[in-house]
Amino acid sequence: MSLKQTARHRCFAGTVEVYQHHSTACNSPMAFSIYLPPQANTERCPALYFLSGLTCTEANFITKAGAQQYAAKYGIVLVVPDTSPRNTGIAGEDERWDVGTGAGFYVDAICDPWSRHYRTYSYVVEELPQLIGREFAVDSNRQSIFGHSMGGHGALVCAFKNPDRYRSVSAFAPICAPTQCPWGELAFKTYLGSNRDRWNAYDACELLSRTAWDRPLLIDQGAADTFLEQQQLRPDLLQQACEKRQLPLTLRMQEGYDHSYYFISTFVGDHLEFHAQYLTN
Amino acid sequence: MSLKQTARHRCFAGTVEVYQHHSTACNSPMAFSIYLPPQANTERCPALYFLSGLTCTEANFITKAGAQQYAAKYGIVLVVPDTSPRNTGIAGEDERWDVGTGAGFYVDAICDPWSRHYRTYSYVVEELPQLIGREFAVDSNRQSIFGHSMGGHGALVCAFKNPDRYRSVSAFAPICAPTQCPWGELAFKTYLGSNRDRWNAYDACELLSRTAWDRPLLIDQGAADTFLEQQQLRPDLLQQACEKRQLPLTLRMQEGYDHSYYFISTFVGDHLEFHAQYLTN
Repeated sequence: MSLKQTARHRCFAGTVEVYQHHSTACNSPMAFSIYLPPQANTERCPALYFLSGLTCTEANFITKAGAQQYAAKYGIVLVVPDTSPRNTGIAGEDERWDVGTGAGFYVDAICDPWSRHYRTYSYVVEELPQLIGREFAVDSNRQSIFGHSMGGHGALVCAFKNPDRYRSVSAFAPICAPTQCPWGELAFKTYLGSNRDRWNAYDACELLSRTAWDRPLLIDQGAADTFLEQQQLRPDLLQQACEKRQLPLTLRMQEGYDHSYYFISTFVGDHLEFHAQYLTN
Repeated sequence: MSLKQTARHRCFAGTVEVYQHHSTACNSPMAFSIYLPPQANTERCPALYFLSGLTCTEANFITKAGAQQYAAKYGIVLVVPDTSPRNTGIAGEDERWDVGTGAGFYVDAICDPWSRHYRTYSYVVEELPQLIGREFAVDSNRQSIFGHSMGGHGALVCAFKNPDRYRSVSAFAPICAPTQCPWGELAFKTYLGSNRDRWNAYDACELLSRTAWDRPLLIDQGAADTFLEQQQLRPDLLQQACEKRQLPLTLRMQEGYDHSYYFISTFVGDHLEFHAQYLTN
């Protein structure tokens, strides 16, 4: 598999690098950003995956969140995949911002034509970490995951389905219960079909009832987030599911904050510190 | 004068706000971003102006540089104007990226048709600070200025021409000698005409021979910046001019860094600390 580097910038004594490669899981090109802290010059570092939200690419988090300073401090590699395959030729893939391009929802689609390319769950959990472990100074035994909005859903699902692969998980304003909100219902119907039983395999709240995941969760949610008001995010359902499981959840409702990267940048330092506890010991 | 707020986001316990207003200096709408730290809720704070580089708008610095965390720490208001008027109707204003839209060069144009609108020097030095002092919790007696590339040139020129108005100045990869580089020569010829004597009033190195400015300068320059190699920036000429004037210059050649916001974000904390010394005492 050949990696094509499309950008490289020194940042906080490490480097931000952007790559394109052919993804086997998605049967198409995929892009990701990576931040290699200065420690990666001399040792294998743990990796922290960030999954982005609707309409985002591999660029948003790495240009706007300001996480590199903390990754450099703790010696953590950041890996930021794109949110979907692009230009696959699927009819209508660019028609909506909440399904198709930029809206892969971190599931393996089973409905034609999406199933030909939209397999971002397998991409994120299997293919990308293998590639990262092979090509970069990463210790694949130490990895964690976090994300924002649709990517917060993705991070929780990846962790709950694979407690042996991820040491810790956190999220900013995650879609906590995609089977019970308009965004998730549309996407899951499109990618997974009408049988709601199939949807539960990608719903963080549903998964909590049967996952072996037992480590504390950190969730930040802006109290002034319009998508919270629109019932797209439902942290209340995650809280209920955690209480039922007696899983420690730190859910911080952040007064006045919205859904933007200004919100993420304010608290990303806390998330890196949270993951560093698990990754650097 | 009516200010139209086009965005508002909580960020590091303060707010990022974006405004449009009619500029008298530019005889057109102008846009700026402002970051109000939490201290601005209870007291008038000093203001630090950031001038952006070619092709930028009021958005680049405020979304990518990560300066808000430091502004919140020191209680400094950040003010980030757009780099030119837009949609003025001047023929050819959008034809090139290095003249016209996004490329005002912080001069008051005297050549028709640019002189009708491209008066960003007066806008930055006179009109905008008056507006900011009137509309926001800013102590107009305490202001400083910094910038990047074309905006680094702008910051040095504004400070050297007005040592009584600015307490401190710094820059990232500034165009140090616009009368002696291709970018500056084209822009100055376009805006100021062929008489090079007029150009000197906007050249930091020329101004150093006659300004009363006597405070230390901080300049960061990426050693891997392609525009440095192309002789667009010429920090060597600024260094010579400072030595001649015996003005203390801290010029840091940053190994491996380029011209991007990844470079700026790495060192912006040092610049805020530098300005805070002058602004918060």
